[in-house]
Amino acid sequence: MNNVYSRKLSIPFDQAIVRLTENLKRQGFGVITNISMKNVFKEKLNIDFRNYTILGACNPEFAYKAVSLESHVGTMLPCNLVVQQHENGEVEVSAMNPLEAIDKALATTFLSEIAVQVSARLRAALDDLHRHALEPAEVDAIPQHPLA
Amino acid sequence: MNNVYSRKLSIPFDQAIVRLTENLKRQGFGVITNISMKNVFKEKLNIDFRNYTILGACNPEFAYKAVSLESHVGTMLPCNLVVQQHENGEVEVSAMNPLEAIDKALATTFLSEIAVQVSARLRAALDDLHRHALEPAEVDAIPQHPLA
Repeated sequence: MNNVYSRKLSIPFDQAIVRLTENLKRQGFGVITNISMKNVFKEKLNIDFRNYTILGACNPEFAYKAVSLESHVGTMLPCNLVVQQHENGEVEVSAMNPLEAIDKALATTFLSEIAVQVSARLRAALDDLHRHALEPAEVDAIPQHPLA
Repeated sequence: MNNVYSRKLSIPFDQAIVRLTENLKRQGFGVITNISMKNVFKEKLNIDFRNYTILGACNPEFAYKAVSLESHVGTMLPCNLVVQQHENGEVEVSAMNPLEAIDKALATTFLSEIAVQVSARLRAALDDLHRHALEPAEVDAIPQHPLA
């Protein structure tokens, strides 16, 4: 997928989630949703799937500006990041480029400017993850939101 | 926004959320995230905002097929629906067209077919909401996921 920014890491899956959450926080994004698709597929379909977690990140300032400019922009919020472990054990983190999603729909200058800034921060969170991938991590439990 | 499907309703905000959740369930989608942007803006920015809730809907079968076909598709999951109350009191529900988001990135036939089916079901959930907008609703509390 062309509109996805992605990085492969040499740290364990759980550590990637913790690190990514920390990096997003440094970029002003809180992780407000955490969906383990591995758990969803097990619970709902009884299928064993690899580690695959979707984090929903939200920067309240940017979100407020964007929603105030275009009332439907919430259909693209929060910004989703995927942390997944491939069959070969490799851990990958990916984020969608919000500019791609927004640009297609409408060319509002102000909204595009917000998307550019959000995109830059999400990329920075991923790049920083890559850079410090071999350092020891401070580990904190991340709350899992159960299925409703 | 051209890629958003939307309906205005003559029922109260809270009832719209309950009804939409029921309709999504009938279409095979569980609501797995519920974000009140009104609460986010109040807690994080101390700004009073109108009722604005983002529901994340997931159909496990479709999600499994999609993720198996394209490992990054999780950046577009769950499917977001917005229930919002405008300044004039009007309640509106909106859903993004997943086909628009997917088509831009890649033209995989199978993935597009899944997106077409998901899109049709999301639209059906909104259309059905509109049709029965004046009937009495069975009300159930929907859990709110607090900010992490």
